[in-house]
Amino acid sequence: MGVVIPLEEKKKPGSGGVESLVALTASGMERVNELILSKAGSDVQMIPEVANHLISSGGKRLRPMITIASAEMFGYHGEGHVKLATSVEFMHTATLLHDDVVDESDLRRSKPTARMIWGNQASVLVGDYLLGQAFKMMVEVGSLEALDVLSQASSVIAEGEVMQLAAAKNMETTEDEYLSVIKAKTAALFSAAAEVGPIIAGAGKADRGALRSYGLNLGLAFQLVDDALDYGGNAKDLGKNTGDDFREGKITLPVVLAFRRGTDEERGFWRASIEKGENSDSELEKARGLMLRYAALTDTIQRARHFGEIARDALAPLRPSPQKEALLDVVEYCVSRVS
Amino acid sequence: MGVVIPLEEKKKPGSGGVESLVALTASGMERVNELILSKAGSDVQMIPEVANHLISSGGKRLRPMITIASAEMFGYHGEGHVKLATSVEFMHTATLLHDDVVDESDLRRSKPTARMIWGNQASVLVGDYLLGQAFKMMVEVGSLEALDVLSQASSVIAEGEVMQLAAAKNMETTEDEYLSVIKAKTAALFSAAAEVGPIIAGAGKADRGALRSYGLNLGLAFQLVDDALDYGGNAKDLGKNTGDDFREGKITLPVVLAFRRGTDEERGFWRASIEKGENSDSELEKARGLMLRYAALTDTIQRARHFGEIARDALAPLRPSPQKEALLDVVEYCVSRVS
Repeated sequence: MGVVIPLEEKKKPGSGGVESLVALTASGMERVNELILSKAGSDVQMIPEVANHLISSGGKRLRPMITIASAEMFGYHGEGHVKLATSVEFMHTATLLHDDVVDESDLRRSKPTARMIWGNQASVLVGDYLLGQAFKMMVEVGSLEALDVLSQASSVIAEGEVMQLAAAKNMETTEDEYLSVIKAKTAALFSAAAEVGPIIAGAGKADRGALRSYGLNLGLAFQLVDDALDYGGNAKDLGKNTGDDFREGKITLPVVLAFRRGTDEERGFWRASIEKGENSDSELEKARGLMLRYAALTDTIQRARHFGEIARDALAPLRPSPQKEALLDVVEYCVSRVS
Repeated sequence: MGVVIPLEEKKKPGSGGVESLVALTASGMERVNELILSKAGSDVQMIPEVANHLISSGGKRLRPMITIASAEMFGYHGEGHVKLATSVEFMHTATLLHDDVVDESDLRRSKPTARMIWGNQASVLVGDYLLGQAFKMMVEVGSLEALDVLSQASSVIAEGEVMQLAAAKNMETTEDEYLSVIKAKTAALFSAAAEVGPIIAGAGKADRGALRSYGLNLGLAFQLVDDALDYGGNAKDLGKNTGDDFREGKITLPVVLAFRRGTDEERGFWRASIEKGENSDSELEKARGLMLRYAALTDTIQRARHFGEIARDALAPLRPSPQKEALLDVVEYCVSRVS
């Protein structure tokens, strides 16, 4: 007599949306939003102007919500997590300001970037200011362990950005090398955002490890889905111009996969597009065609699902809580932004 | 019978050079230099390349020497002050990297700036990396009070840079406004560098206040002398191109004074030079002539001496020590770089 093992995936809990996370963190996020406005202020008029341009540009504030949820999950009551969540969002905003300068981007979420309105100089300096404000808030919280995690993330993010710059337009970049870049430049902040929650709540080592791993892998999944969305995918919710990465000659996983799986002639096309900047609309269409032929977008999503599963398993040992369910839903949300 | 009051200035102690500070901090600075090399390292090759370009460019490392001396002055033994001193130097280096991007400078100390060799992007990102490393080191030291002082400085410096950017090329800038800028962008780091010494040594509030005030006023004096040197003065030791500030349209105190003291016609000249960029060699010569006519350079030095005196008096209540004498000598050194 045999045993029938169901091959269907275990049903994912919840709706797979961010709604439950938004609802659970509403009170904390209200205080985060107030703190963002007050700490982005300055008597130097240009600072709030530039900062608010980006802050009010409609990001979902996923990172600070994760910090709030991961602290309250372990019973934290207080204001420390609000300050740490705000610090995380400021670190993220500072990175965006500097990124747009480095990438020479004109648009972000279909709006002109800060550097297009106020110039590269203001973008560099206001980024520095927000970073300084972020560190000040962390210091106010007074947890050396949280400071350790966030300052480490700050170094790693910058290192990842330089890595990306050094690898820029280099078609020989391997998938592993690309993963190292996004682990540093994107996943490290998600990881820190999640880990400071249990730290400030005084949770144990295992809980810290669980949230750190959750954040890291969620961050990887998030970035890979973002990479696929930039080539269209079946984007449900975009908020960015498709084709930006291509036009900027950015190496992302869809490009790495299509390049490595292609013919010599096709590799010549990728070199011309990415390395030499032949990237008009007709080349973008050809790039999309090649990605389709080699399943580069669907496999990028598949890789994202892989990391999403690791993120889910990282939380598995934790006892049930609304926060845990909400964080699991976020994984599903991230990987199902594309169908 | 009258009393003869000697009108001569009280003799300044020591040689008025940096030699005694260099000698006193030699052991600490050796460890600082080792730490600089190791913490500016990274597997990402571009990071040490860019960082070392600036780090090895022959700055005097005045700021970290001040941190070492101001800790040892209060009997500190350990490695914490070495890490804080290195953090201070990294914060300074990060600021220079970002400044050169913001100012679009080609040369620093007669050498091409990092941005001319590796580009603006690398300069922005390696600056971010060094800032991250600076915060990591501070966190390792574990003093929340030192973290508070240095993170506060980090925000204030960026705020000062934005202030300077907003005031750029605006000839209506008053002396007070200019002082606010340099207080934030230069003096705040000197102040923090000096204050973290007594903090880590566990010295009292009065000692902290003394060193904080010393650093702040030394920083103001230092910057004002630098401003004068950029127009030549009677520079003994320059290491920068004279006329850079003029060619970049920077508002500095000599310009503010010459503008405000001049005729309407001369103010027209300053507007054309600074605001509209008419700044060839012949205009630079004219600018120097006007500064001479209105004693703008000598009075800038005079202002520097004023802050130098405040710095000296800040240290006055401290009991005698070799470090105290060395720090007093540094004041003299700063204001006597020009004669």
